[in-house]
Amino acid sequence: MIDGALLIGGDTRQAETRFTAVNPATGETLTPDFSSAGADAVAEACALADAAFPAFAATDPETRAAFLERIADNIVGLGDDLIVRAMAESGLPRMRLEGERGRTVGQLKLFAGVVRQGDFLDATIDPAMPDRAPLPRPDLRRVNVAIGPVAVFGASNFPLAFSVAGGDTASALAAGCPVVVKGHPAHPGTGELVARAIAQAVKDSGLPAGVFSYLPGETNELGAALVRDPRIQAVGFTGSRGGGLALVRIAAEREEPIPVYAEMSSINPVVLFPAALAARGEAMGKEFVASLTMGAGQFCTNPGLVLAIDGPDLDAFIASAATAMTDAAPATMLTPGIHASFEQGVDALAGHDAVKTVARGKVGDGVNQAVGAIFDTTAEAFLADRALSHEVFGSSSVVVRCRDMAEIARVIAGLEGQLTATLQMDAADEADAARLVPVIARRVGRILANGWPTGVEVAPAMVHGGPFPATSDGRTTSVGTLAIARYLRPVCFQNLAPALLPAALDDANPWGIARRLDGKREASPR
Amino acid sequence: MIDGALLIGGDTRQAETRFTAVNPATGETLTPDFSSAGADAVAEACALADAAFPAFAATDPETRAAFLERIADNIVGLGDDLIVRAMAESGLPRMRLEGERGRTVGQLKLFAGVVRQGDFLDATIDPAMPDRAPLPRPDLRRVNVAIGPVAVFGASNFPLAFSVAGGDTASALAAGCPVVVKGHPAHPGTGELVARAIAQAVKDSGLPAGVFSYLPGETNELGAALVRDPRIQAVGFTGSRGGGLALVRIAAEREEPIPVYAEMSSINPVVLFPAALAARGEAMGKEFVASLTMGAGQFCTNPGLVLAIDGPDLDAFIASAATAMTDAAPATMLTPGIHASFEQGVDALAGHDAVKTVARGKVGDGVNQAVGAIFDTTAEAFLADRALSHEVFGSSSVVVRCRDMAEIARVIAGLEGQLTATLQMDAADEADAARLVPVIARRVGRILANGWPTGVEVAPAMVHGGPFPATSDGRTTSVGTLAIARYLRPVCFQNLAPALLPAALDDANPWGIARRLDGKREASPR
Repeated sequence: MIDGALLIGGDTRQAETRFTAVNPATGETLTPDFSSAGADAVAEACALADAAFPAFAATDPETRAAFLERIADNIVGLGDDLIVRAMAESGLPRMRLEGERGRTVGQLKLFAGVVRQGDFLDATIDPAMPDRAPLPRPDLRRVNVAIGPVAVFGASNFPLAFSVAGGDTASALAAGCPVVVKGHPAHPGTGELVARAIAQAVKDSGLPAGVFSYLPGETNELGAALVRDPRIQAVGFTGSRGGGLALVRIAAEREEPIPVYAEMSSINPVVLFPAALAARGEAMGKEFVASLTMGAGQFCTNPGLVLAIDGPDLDAFIASAATAMTDAAPATMLTPGIHASFEQGVDALAGHDAVKTVARGKVGDGVNQAVGAIFDTTAEAFLADRALSHEVFGSSSVVVRCRDMAEIARVIAGLEGQLTATLQMDAADEADAARLVPVIARRVGRILANGWPTGVEVAPAMVHGGPFPATSDGRTTSVGTLAIARYLRPVCFQNLAPALLPAALDDANPWGIARRLDGKREASPR
Repeated sequence: MIDGALLIGGDTRQAETRFTAVNPATGETLTPDFSSAGADAVAEACALADAAFPAFAATDPETRAAFLERIADNIVGLGDDLIVRAMAESGLPRMRLEGERGRTVGQLKLFAGVVRQGDFLDATIDPAMPDRAPLPRPDLRRVNVAIGPVAVFGASNFPLAFSVAGGDTASALAAGCPVVVKGHPAHPGTGELVARAIAQAVKDSGLPAGVFSYLPGETNELGAALVRDPRIQAVGFTGSRGGGLALVRIAAEREEPIPVYAEMSSINPVVLFPAALAARGEAMGKEFVASLTMGAGQFCTNPGLVLAIDGPDLDAFIASAATAMTDAAPATMLTPGIHASFEQGVDALAGHDAVKTVARGKVGDGVNQAVGAIFDTTAEAFLADRALSHEVFGSSSVVVRCRDMAEIARVIAGLEGQLTATLQMDAADEADAARLVPVIARRVGRILANGWPTGVEVAPAMVHGGPFPATSDGRTTSVGTLAIARYLRPVCFQNLAPALLPAALDDANPWGIARRLDGKREASPR
């Protein structure tokens, strides 16, 4: 059921201010209209989250893991209604959204496993040394605790996997933090369906209702009020650089500043090394365009920059990419606003004196259609104008012709922080790559070889983060199990009576977790 | 040898602008005069640190650990000259400084062990699953890497353990980050001696000279220039709230914002529970004053706030504390400025309408003498005026008379973030304590029972941190082995050729470290 409600701690509520969603493929307004949450709803949701926090943070692993699994089951239980609505609101095709639902459910279950395993608690015990000279050592025990209520901003480009029940929500709930979601206005019906599934899971699990609230809306004021609320202790965001930086600023200006985990902007350089380029330039050109145009290019890890040494091999790669792009079908973008920004970015590149348009994709009939674009320029021109390194969200990429590997290294060293960098290399390129990897590693969160950056595995070793402005906090990741660390902080207990210790630090280890004893960590139990 | 030099990557340099240090016990100016580092020195030190970064970050554990141990040995090798100079510059007694040197050396050796053990790398390997359907899983490997050059601000109150070679420097070097120290102007001779010991260790260890630079100075501009330098990637600071917040602001306004770990302000509430107060109020009064006046009260964890239920038992505690304070000898404070701030803070409390002066310590003859102070007030008055909860750095504390445990909880819930909270409790207090601990845990980094907050153990389980404004980043600690995490960030390597992987992620595990394989962590190897 979708009726345009807010969900505040399990209660539905209709707001007087309304907004509507648009089907980007047709331009039609969708029904029903939706509540636009106001300041009162923010305050109420945050108060409930704060009240729910101590009990939720204190849940045992099994309760919290089962809750995450229940959310996953309830989302699956929404059936095809969810997919159909998400298709209408996002313009994304069925197969993509079915895959994304699988990832969303998989993330929730992965975090259930993380919670049960308990390694994230980093439980550490330094036993007392009563006879140590000159002073005895006290009994010291440390554990990670939930940071407090978390504000999650739904992202437009993953209406399931990085929205209401996406990675930020899953990792915050796994950490023991109540979540208040600011719903993205591009997919409010999808958001409401998922929010109801979560609220039902809260009820099913017997948890305090304030563990989850859902506040849809289309104003910047809503997000600002949420980040300003003194009860919110951290923020998860995926979106534009402007939006992310605005939230970072608001959070820093609070009486009590809080961390903002904003994933914002990345052009994901791809380096084509000489031997690989010579051996398989044509194939790479096709693969590149497939990665670039996938999902209308609306991925944070879209390959927006290609670096290679100028010459006939690069010309062959470009020719192959140009052919593939010329044949590429247009694709509906997520929103009219995103489409307009894409066109503006592409027009700016096309009109740049030092940039040549290599190829454009097929033009379509419908509205909000992304027509892909490949440009090329020289390293000299690229280094001379920072605007050429700004992200154009969508299927647009710039190939930069470099004189030699040293110039490629200079271009990379001059880049802002990036989520990823990709090496297309063969065995004969290893010496060049070995020199470049340390330069690249300073600017990115993930280095990958002989693949394409789109397609982010949800796994323990994944890092979907990177130095500013890829994210606002390069010490963290928003994808993979390490994402839970964003919503934790350590607390030390010194000489506390056993009855007052958290279960994770109890001598009897009732949760059966791996702990660090006197500096030595035990193996994971499962 | 002390000749007032800057140390820039192993080279000594005299600056034209000079400043002098004062013996706070006598008010006399000490010789020689010292270089005050300017913008050119900052730029040079940061450029060298940046150049040294890749090689230093890539050192193997044994090289880096031996370097830390060499620093420790070189500090010990300074002999009594170091202690004599630190006494003259800080007014702290010999025994305290000898103990602090032991802690400084111990911290360096502890981090050498952390580096050799390798758990801090969090090396994580998710093997490829080439046959997984619908898509194969790539080979994913993650490891923590050094964040980049770090600026460390020497603290006045620990001229050895939190200054040039203190906890921030030790943890940053252990992480693989070159360090540029902004020397505290209160102890420039001590700082220079230690800086020379570190620079010698850099040379002895065959490391790039830019791994360490030392920039003494007394201007705010020096610190600001250092934090603004684009090559600096993180900041460690212990000091005043004003100073810390200024650095946080500068770091946030950079084109690339960076993390600032500022440890700033805490009044460290102590709760005297009813049964403990009845059983041992008199003894606690004496212990309290011993903790309060230790080192002239110049500890971040000084007990500046005591909470208890009003009545005859609290009166007995206060009477005992008053007697002890009346007998307490005056003590030299670290600097004339700190002394003036202390007097100002104490005068403000003494002149407050709702505050009663319980006792003052003995008045001494010398200059810059802290005369301890105990005040009392009611919870009502304390809750009504936030100024009463501001830190007075030095031996000043406020006892707050509360009506009942609920009022104690209200006072704690209303406090800003704190480094510590202390429970003085007996077995009969456990039920009360169990209700209060969750309230306290939201506001602090460490909870201790039946001790006093001064005296911070350097150990794996220690947390010397806490919610804002105790620190600017409550997700971290500045004392204990976990401090290394402040200077690390994760990087993921996907499908990289073995030759391009960092050693920590090599299949052969050449460093013999514990790793996480497919989500399961191995036991620490040592």
